[in-house]
Amino acid sequence: MNSMHRRTVLSVAPLAAGSLLLTAWAHSASDSQDRSGGASLPVPPPASADASLGATVDSELNLRTIQTRIDGAVLYATVDSKPLSLIEPDLVADLVTLIEALDRSDRHRVVVFTSTDPDIFISHENLREVAKYRQPVARLTGEASFRLMLRRLSTTKAVTIAQVSSRVRGAGNEFILACDMRFASRERAIFGQFEAGFGLAPGAGSVQHLARLLGRGRALEAILSADDYNAERAEHYGWINRALPDAQLAPFVTALAQRIASFPMAGLMANKERINAVTLAAAAD
Amino acid sequence: MNSMHRRTVLSVAPLAAGSLLLTAWAHSASDSQDRSGGASLPVPPPASADASLGATVDSELNLRTIQTRIDGAVLYATVDSKPLSLIEPDLVADLVTLIEALDRSDRHRVVVFTSTDPDIFISHENLREVAKYRQPVARLTGEASFRLMLRRLSTTKAVTIAQVSSRVRGAGNEFILACDMRFASRERAIFGQFEAGFGLAPGAGSVQHLARLLGRGRALEAILSADDYNAERAEHYGWINRALPDAQLAPFVTALAQRIASFPMAGLMANKERINAVTLAAAAD
Amino acid sequence: MNSMHRRTVLSVAPLAAGSLLLTAWAHSASDSQDRSGGASLPVPPPASADASLGATVDSELNLRTIQTRIDGAVLYATVDSKPLSLIEPDLVADLVTLIEALDRSDRHRVVVFTSTDPDIFISHENLREVAKYRQPVARLTGEASFRLMLRRLSTTKAVTIAQVSSRVRGAGNEFILACDMRFASRERAIFGQFEAGFGLAPGAGSVQHLARLLGRGRALEAILSADDYNAERAEHYGWINRALPDAQLAPFVTALAQRIASFPMAGLMANKERINAVTLAAAAD
Repeated sequence: MNSMHRRTVLSVAPLAAGSLLLTAWAHSASDSQDRSGGASLPVPPPASADASLGATVDSELNLRTIQTRIDGAVLYATVDSKPLSLIEPDLVADLVTLIEALDRSDRHRVVVFTSTDPDIFISHENLREVAKYRQPVARLTGEASFRLMLRRLSTTKAVTIAQVSSRVRGAGNEFILACDMRFASRERAIFGQFEAGFGLAPGAGSVQHLARLLGRGRALEAILSADDYNAERAEHYGWINRALPDAQLAPFVTALAQRIASFPMAGLMANKERINAVTLAAAAD
Repeated sequence: MNSMHRRTVLSVAPLAAGSLLLTAWAHSASDSQDRSGGASLPVPPPASADASLGATVDSELNLRTIQTRIDGAVLYATVDSKPLSLIEPDLVADLVTLIEALDRSDRHRVVVFTSTDPDIFISHENLREVAKYRQPVARLTGEASFRLMLRRLSTTKAVTIAQVSSRVRGAGNEFILACDMRFASRERAIFGQFEAGFGLAPGAGSVQHLARLLGRGRALEAILSADDYNAERAEHYGWINRALPDAQLAPFVTALAQRIASFPMAGLMANKERINAVTLAAAAD
Repeated sequence: MNSMHRRTVLSVAPLAAGSLLLTAWAHSASDSQDRSGGASLPVPPPASADASLGATVDSELNLRTIQTRIDGAVLYATVDSKPLSLIEPDLVADLVTLIEALDRSDRHRVVVFTSTDPDIFISHENLREVAKYRQPVARLTGEASFRLMLRRLSTTKAVTIAQVSSRVRGAGNEFILACDMRFASRERAIFGQFEAGFGLAPGAGSVQHLARLLGRGRALEAILSADDYNAERAEHYGWINRALPDAQLAPFVTALAQRIASFPMAGLMANKERINAVTLAAAAD
C-alpha cells in the first residue's frame, strides 16, 4: 500500500442505503489532485520496495507466448510472440489459459497487457487462428468463437488494462477493445480496423465497442475508412481512455493498476459487473 | 426577456410535420454566435432589472438546508447545510419538498443548484441518511430509495442545472449526475466516486449515468480507480457539460438558465421527456 | 486508385473466423500516418486525372434542386434551392428520388452532400413541406413522414457524408444527423436546433441522434437552450465528426469519400448495417 492510501479515515460505517458514512476522506484526499488536466495519479513507490516482485505465473500456467511478472496483486502480461511474420496461434490458447486462471483465484486483481514488439501490439494474424484451437476456446465459451473468447475477457473477474505503445490493428484492436481500459503512447500508438478495405467486417465485438464508444458518425468513419488513427485522435474519439507522452505511459498505468489492485476484490467485481450490464452487448449479438 | 430574444420573427406558422415555418429567424440569429469555441451565450441583463428578484420560496416551502432566490422563472437553490462535519439529513427532506413543489406549478422552469460551501458541493454524508427520512422519500417515489429520489429529480418538470465550484464526491456526485446539466469551475471543481476504494459500489443511478456518459473504458477507469477528476478531465470525459474559468461560471450558467426559462414550458417538458426516454435507465434498473 | 492503395499486399486469404490473414499490410500502411492529431487522410490526386469527372446523373434522375457531379464511385450532391426566402419543397421530392436511385444500383458507393448557399446548408423551411409531397415520401417509407424519410437516408446502401461550411439549423440539422458522417468548416459552420425556443420539439430522429451522440447532459443543453453551436464546440460534443480549417474541408472529405468508395460495396454495406443496428433508434421510435 503506497502513501496515497495512508490517509486517516476517521469514520467508516455501513448505511442502509448500501454505501458508507465517510467524513474525513472527503477532506483529506484532495492533496493528490493535479489540476493541470494531466495524469492525476501519483507515481507509485519504486518496484524494488515490493518483496513479491520478480515472481511469475509462468511455471504454473505454462504460457508460451505471454511473459508474466507479478507485483503485488497486479499481473503484467507481456505478449511475446515473435517472429511476427509467422503464425503464432499459441497466443489464443495462452489467453484462454490466462482467463481461466484469473477467474480461479483473487490473487491477480488487475492485469496489464503490453507487448515486447516495438511495432505491433498484437498482430492480426496472431488472433485469427481460432480454428486451430477449437478445443481451448470451446472449453472457455462453449463454442470456438474468437468473439466469445474476447467477451469472456471483458467479463473476467480481474480488471484488464491495455498499455499500447505500437500499432494495433484488426483482431489486435478487437483484443484491446475487449479489455476494460486502454492507455496509449501519444508518439507511437496507432489504431485501426482495416477489414472494410477488403470487403470484410471486423469481429462483431469490435463493431459493438466502437459504435458505443465513438457514436454512430465516428464509428462509421473509422470502420468504413479502414484508416489508421493516431493516439491523440483515438483519445478524442473515445477509442482509448487517454493518450500519454511515451515516457509517462508505463508509470501512469502502473500507478493506476496498483491503486485499483489495493481495493477490495468484491467491490471491483461488483462495479465491473454493473458497468458491463450497461455497456456490453448481449452475448448473442 | 433579454435583448437576444427581441429579434424580429417575420413569419411563424405551424406545419403538418409538427414544426414551424420560420424564415427570418435563421437569418438573424447568428449575431450572437461566438466563434471562438468559448461560451456562446450572452451575459443577461443586470439582476436588478428584474422586479421579482429577492423573492424566495423559503416561506412557503419551509426549507431548512437550501437557500432559494427567484429571478423570473429561474429558481436558484443554494445548498447550505453547515457544518459539514455533522450529519444534516434535512437536505434529503428538503429536496423531496422542492421536487414536489417544482412539479406542482410552472412557476420555476429552471433550477440552478449551487452550494455555499467553498470546498464541498454536497457532501456524501448529507445524502446517505435516507433511512432516517423514509416518509418523505417514500411519499415521492413509493419506497425509501435514494436512487429513486434522484431519478425523480431527473424527471421533474423543471430543467435542473448543477453549477459546481468545489469538490463533489460519492452521493454528492450522484446528485449532480441526476441533474439535467453540469457546469464547473475549471480551477476549483473536482469529481469522484470513491466507493470502490472501500469495496462498495456507487448508487446504481450513478453507475448508469457514468457508463452512458463516459463509455465503458472511462467509466471503468473512474469508478474502479475511485480517483479524483479535475474539471478539465471531467469535461473531456463527458462527465460534465463544460469546464469554465471560475469567473465566467456563474454568468454563463445564469445566462443559460434565463435563456431556457424564457421558452415555453410545454416545449421544455416535451423535449426533456424525449431525451430522458433515450438516456435514462429504466426505473427498475 | 490513388497512391495510398498501391501498397503491396503479400498475402490475403479468407479464414474460418470470418476475417483475413494479412501480413504485409500491417507493416506498410503506417507511412500515411499523420501524428499531429490532424487530418490523417492524404489529399487525393487532382480531379482532372479522373476521366469520369463531369458526368452527372441529372439527366436520368431529373433532379431540380440538387446539382450532381460524379467522380468514380462518389456522387457529389450539392443542394441548390435558391432563393432561400421562398419555399422550395422540391428538395424533399428530389431527396426521395436520390435515395431510390442509390438503392437501385452499386454505382454510387459514397454520396457527399454540400450546399451552394454560403450562409445556410439546407434551410429549415426547405425540408418541412412534407405535407405537400405525400406521394413521393409515402412511396419511399409507407407514410408521409419526414422522420421516416430521414431514417431511410440513414439506412440507404450508399455511405453518406455531410460537408458543412455554413449554418445548419432545425430540419437542416436533422438532415445532416441522418447522414452517416458530418465534417464542418471550423470558421463558418454553425449548428442548432431552435425548436424549443418556440415551444416545439425537433423531429424525433434528431432528438435520438443528439441524445446518443452527445449524452444526456449535453443533448439537454443543446436542445433546451435552442442555441447555436460553432464547429469546434460541435466537434467537442460529438455532434460532428471533425471541425477542419475551411481550406482543408473539401480536400479532406474528398479524400475520405474516394478512399471509402475504393472498397468493396458488400463490405461497406455489411459494416454500415451492423453499426446501424447498434446506433439507430428503432423505426417505430
